[in-house]
Order: sequence, then C-alpha cells, then structure tokens
Amino acid sequence: MHFETPLPLQSGAVLPAYELAFETYGTLNAERSNAVLVCHALNASHHVAGTWANGSVGWWDNLIGPGKPLDTDRFFVIGINNPGSCFGSTGPMHTNPATGRPWGSDFPVVTVEDWVDAQARLLDRLGINRLAAVLGGSLGGMQALAWSLRHPQRVRQVAAIATAPNLSAQNIAFNEVARRAIVTDPDFHGGHFYGHGVLPRRGLRVARMLGHITYLSDDTMEARFGRSLRAGDGAALAYTTQDIEFQIESYLRHQGDKFSEYFDANTYLLITRALDYFDPARAHGGDLARAFAAAGCEALGLRFLVVSFTTDWRFAPGRSREIVKALVDNRIAVNYAEIDAPHGHDAFLLDDARYHALVRAWFERLSGELDNRHV
Amino acid sequence: MHFETPLPLQSGAVLPAYELAFETYGTLNAERSNAVLVCHALNASHHVAGTWANGSVGWWDNLIGPGKPLDTDRFFVIGINNPGSCFGSTGPMHTNPATGRPWGSDFPVVTVEDWVDAQARLLDRLGINRLAAVLGGSLGGMQALAWSLRHPQRVRQVAAIATAPNLSAQNIAFNEVARRAIVTDPDFHGGHFYGHGVLPRRGLRVARMLGHITYLSDDTMEARFGRSLRAGDGAALAYTTQDIEFQIESYLRHQGDKFSEYFDANTYLLITRALDYFDPARAHGGDLARAFAAAGCEALGLRFLVVSFTTDWRFAPGRSREIVKALVDNRIAVNYAEIDAPHGHDAFLLDDARYHALVRAWFERLSGELDNRHV
Repeated sequence: MHFETPLPLQSGAVLPAYELAFETYGTLNAERSNAVLVCHALNASHHVAGTWANGSVGWWDNLIGPGKPLDTDRFFVIGINNPGSCFGSTGPMHTNPATGRPWGSDFPVVTVEDWVDAQARLLDRLGINRLAAVLGGSLGGMQALAWSLRHPQRVRQVAAIATAPNLSAQNIAFNEVARRAIVTDPDFHGGHFYGHGVLPRRGLRVARMLGHITYLSDDTMEARFGRSLRAGDGAALAYTTQDIEFQIESYLRHQGDKFSEYFDANTYLLITRALDYFDPARAHGGDLARAFAAAGCEALGLRFLVVSFTTDWRFAPGRSREIVKALVDNRIAVNYAEIDAPHGHDAFLLDDARYHALVRAWFERLSGELDNRHV
Repeated sequence: MHFETPLPLQSGAVLPAYELAFETYGTLNAERSNAVLVCHALNASHHVAGTWANGSVGWWDNLIGPGKPLDTDRFFVIGINNPGSCFGSTGPMHTNPATGRPWGSDFPVVTVEDWVDAQARLLDRLGINRLAAVLGGSLGGMQALAWSLRHPQRVRQVAAIATAPNLSAQNIAFNEVARRAIVTDPDFHGGHFYGHGVLPRRGLRVARMLGHITYLSDDTMEARFGRSLRAGDGAALAYTTQDIEFQIESYLRHQGDKFSEYFDANTYLLITRALDYFDPARAHGGDLARAFAAAGCEALGLRFLVVSFTTDWRFAPGRSREIVKALVDNRIAVNYAEIDAPHGHDAFLLDDARYHALVRAWFERLSGELDNRHV
C-alpha cells in the first residue's frame, strides 16, 4: 500500500512517501472488530502464516492459521512489514527521492514508535478503528507494548511474548558488536554499497553468527552440538585454526552464509537500533508504571498477555516480570506465564504445547467476548 | 630462555628451536621445593606481578607479591609466557626457520598440553623437579589441570580458578565468531599480514568487543553502564546507527581499539583454539574421573583448590563442580569454593576479600607443610 503523506519520526526527521507491505488472513467481520495485528522481529516480515507459491512458509505459521491458536477462522489477522526492513516495505535499498539513488545509510532512523504509527495508518486505510489484539514476540512484543502506550484507544488486548521493556547494557553490547562488524566491513562503503556492486557479507555473517548464539539457550546448543566434531566423534582432530573442527562452527557458518545472501546490511543497523532505542519508561523518569498510567490503559480496559521462557537469556523472564509489575501497579488486567522451555529466546517461534495452549485460550476468550457483543 | 631441542606437539607437528619468556619472584629455597608456576590466560604473559620500569603492572599483582595471598617472601613464583603468544615467547610473528619469513598462520597449532610440556622443560632448566603448586585462572586453570594429568609426579598442589574441564558448545561458538571476524578481515591476508604492512585491526576489534561481553556479568554491565548515554542521561538522543549513543558502546569500542593495537591476530586464533581443544576427558570416553585415575593423582597425594564465581557465565560454577566431582570420585583431596561475586568471569582477576583470603589460607597451609618437611 502506498502512502503519500510523509510520516513524522521520533528523531524529528520525516519519511517521505512510502510503501508498506502487508498480508491478511481470514475475514474482517461486519463490526470490523476482529482484527489482530501481528508485529515482526528482526529477521521477519508481513508473511506471518500460510505458504507462498515459492514454498515460503510464514514465520509464525505454527501459531496462526485456520484452527490454530490464533485462529484465522475467527480473526482477521494482519501481518505488516515495517519501514526500514528489507522484505517489501520502503527501506534503505529503495530510492531516496532527494537524490534519486538508494537511501543506504541515509535512510532515517526509525523507532518502534514510528513503526506503530505507520501500522496505525495502514489500519486507517483498512477501515479498522480498533484492533481486537496486537501480538508480537521479541522486538514484535515491543511494538505490541508501544501500541498500548501510543494508541491505547485503538487496541483491546495486547500480547507481548519473549520481550523486554528495554534492552539491557548486555543486549545493546551484542547489537553494537554486530553493527561494528558490518560497518567496518570494507564492502559496506559507509552504507552506500549498492552502487559498488558489492555486499558487506563478511560483516553480516559475523553479525548473524553472533545473533544465533543469543537466540539459543546454552543447554540447547550443548544438546544439539556439544563438542561433536564435524568429521564425526571418533575422528582424529584436524588441529586447525581457520577450518571447521566442531559441528557448532559448521552450523554457525552456514547460518551466517545464508543470512548474508538475503539480508540488507543497512536494515540490520536500523532494526538493531530500533531495539536499542525502545525504552517507553524513559519519558517517565524510568518508571514503566507511569508510562502505562499516562496512557490510561486501565481506564480504557486494556488487557495483556505476557509470556516469557525460562531459558531465554536474551530477554530473560525477569524482564517480562518488569512489564507485569508495571501493569499490576496500574491495576491493569494481565495474564502472565513463564514457560519452562529449553530452547532459549527462539522458544517464542516454536511449537511448545503449553505455550500454544495458553495463546489459544487467550484468543478463544477474546473471540467469545467479541461474539457476546454481537448479541 | 632458548631451547634447541624441538618440542613435539599434540598435533604431530614439532615446534623447532624456540624461546620462552619467563619472570621469577622470590627465592628458590635450598630444597628447591617452594616453586609455584603461574599460568596465563588469553591476554596475559609471564609478567604476573610487580611493576616494570615502563609502569606495566603484572596482571595478577593483587594476588602475588611480598605478603600477598601467594606470598613471594615464602614462594619462588614463576610466570611464563606460552609459545604462540605475542608477549615474548616464540610466536607467529617470529621467523619460521623453514622459510626465513614470519610464521604467520603456519605457526603450528599448540594445545594446553603442549604448553605444559614446554613449561616442564623450563623447570628442568631451572633445576626444579617438583612444583609446590601450579596456579592458573580461566585458560590458566586448564593448564593447572593439565599439569596434574600430564606430569602429576612433578606437582604437589593444583589451584584451578574460574575454569572448566572443556569448552561448551556456546564457548566454542563465541570463539568461532571472533575467529571469523579476524580471518575474514581483508587485512588478515590468510595470516601472512606481516609482510603487507597492515594489521587485521577490524577483526581484532570485533573479537575483543565480543570477548569483553563474555568476561563481564550481565549485572555488572548493567550497574556500570546500564542504558546511560554517552552525552549524559539528560541529553537528547542523537538517533544514529553508526555513531556512539550509549556508554556501553563507547566502552566496548575503546577496549577493541586498544587491543587491536598490541595483540597479534594469529595468536588470537591459536589461543582460542587451545581453549577449544582442551578436553582431557576425551581420551577416556568423556569421563574426567577416569582421566584423574589414569594419572594416578590420588596415589601421588595431589591436592586441589578449585574456585568458581557465581556470576561467571563463561565458565559457570557448574563447570567447576564437574572437576570437583571427578576429583572426589577418585578420593583426591580438593577444596572447593563458589565465591558470591558480581563481576562475572573477570572476578578471578579482581581483589575480592573472601576469594583472596581463601587463596592465602591455601598457600599458607602449603608453606607450613613445606616448612615442616625441613624439620
């Protein structure tokens, strides 16, 4: 969908005319009350469910679809790609109208709040005044939280999975290492590599390898790879510093290679920065409870689902509990579950029975409430 | 000290004639029974204590010196730099006699066991048949363990601090990301950058930044840096993807810059690989207890001190407990302490009162035992 009106950004800059890629599932009911917006994290898009003709399966297909926990027979689900991403919406690889060349690193810095504003404009166009729910995991969960704070009158319920009220110093540190790997790759050309016929693949590979470590729990990595040798556990050691010896090295290099072929380097910088900057409590003296109070979430009757995973060390359960505490301090209705799952941060994308049952029950209750309003 | 006899290595290769840099403190007694060998970790050397004329303070100076926990008024302390390092002993920046050019990435892969063998040769030259103790932290702790397994008749007591019986998949993964950053830096030139007048600084910076994250606890990083802005906490956000916004970024970049000026890239590969390869249980079906049994540590009366730190997530206390269990399974005497310290892996280098009191008591008892033998 094309938008002519420039989008004012948190930074003070504006995003001129832009496109948003989105995908919908199910049917918007007559009351236009059953819409659920699904927000994506770093390496994902509007393609949240279903399978494209090219075989591409939606990134949350195990959770969203007909008869699934977020049931598209009941809800009208909207997946949207955020500006600055590299999967369809306007991003750094597209033309900067001011120069006629790709934006590159001149693409404006976008924040979680900017994305939520862009999403709200899409809803305007779709004629949806109020969402039944907004759902997101990780960075997507931050967008869900931002909806409740920025447009609280436009959403009934908010599901924030495996997320945090802001990044810790360690989280920012990992992002910064990844960014330095990209920015110092000679093929980055200050973010204007598009015209040089090269891609900063070295930097992207390192960034992705590092990211992968933080997505998996220590235990999962140990169980899947341990100290197994690529040549087989009975094999003699090769004694090499540059070649692969252990299976975990082979796995990480493969992940890095794949990622560097399709992900945009400037998008990586923009999205990790959106993560770094997200901090809704900052404008309220660091007090998240005051942020929810200022938004009037309690008076508007918003209800929350917050889910964390025990082995997630990127956004540990303690970070979700900070969100829950701020909600409870405001007497805002919240269901909180800490799922005992071994998979680390990635657990939010996986098909865990207890987790999915919980999400299913939450949406079923919401669906029932919407039905009762019809009566 | 120069060694003409080639050193046979675990890989099957040999290190031809080589130099070992070492430093000693205190006085070897008449019985030659009071020698303590101190083994270094990744970024350290033979300069374990005292202050050089240039102001350089030994890396374990808070622990080692006259009247300190490892008291050089009582013990003859030896610090040694390992082959492959870049602080004095023969390493990849020195001349490969086969080519007349710097070794570079052709320097043979050295293991913890190889280092211990080189250290044993130094003791031969110094006329020390049996060490009172060997002491090391992190990778140095692995060398201390290797002493007990490889030359158990040559050491009375073993102190292994903040270490592990081998690296986990996650540990190897972090090492591999750092190595890829270095190896894919165009200035690495396949490890033969010395002749090109360049250094792979980009890769070294990324490697060091990443390393630093794993040395500090999440809590320490949060307490020291949190989300503080470099411009000051009241400052407006700069909204930048490539420049520094947060203090933690400034700190990490500074650490990376410093390191890249003095540390050798090939040494980084060699030392991280020595970490990866260390796994004394491997030759015993993965059973560390069998490794200690095969070495005869119990019959020889070896005694151990094992120390871990609660917030060390690089080598977590559970890894030290694996060592303790293998010792106890063999009825080998071991003192184990888990120090409740906030500083993460770096805690082993810091002046924590309980930790230092423990090390002091352990060495005082050892000193007393050596004195009693005089009587």
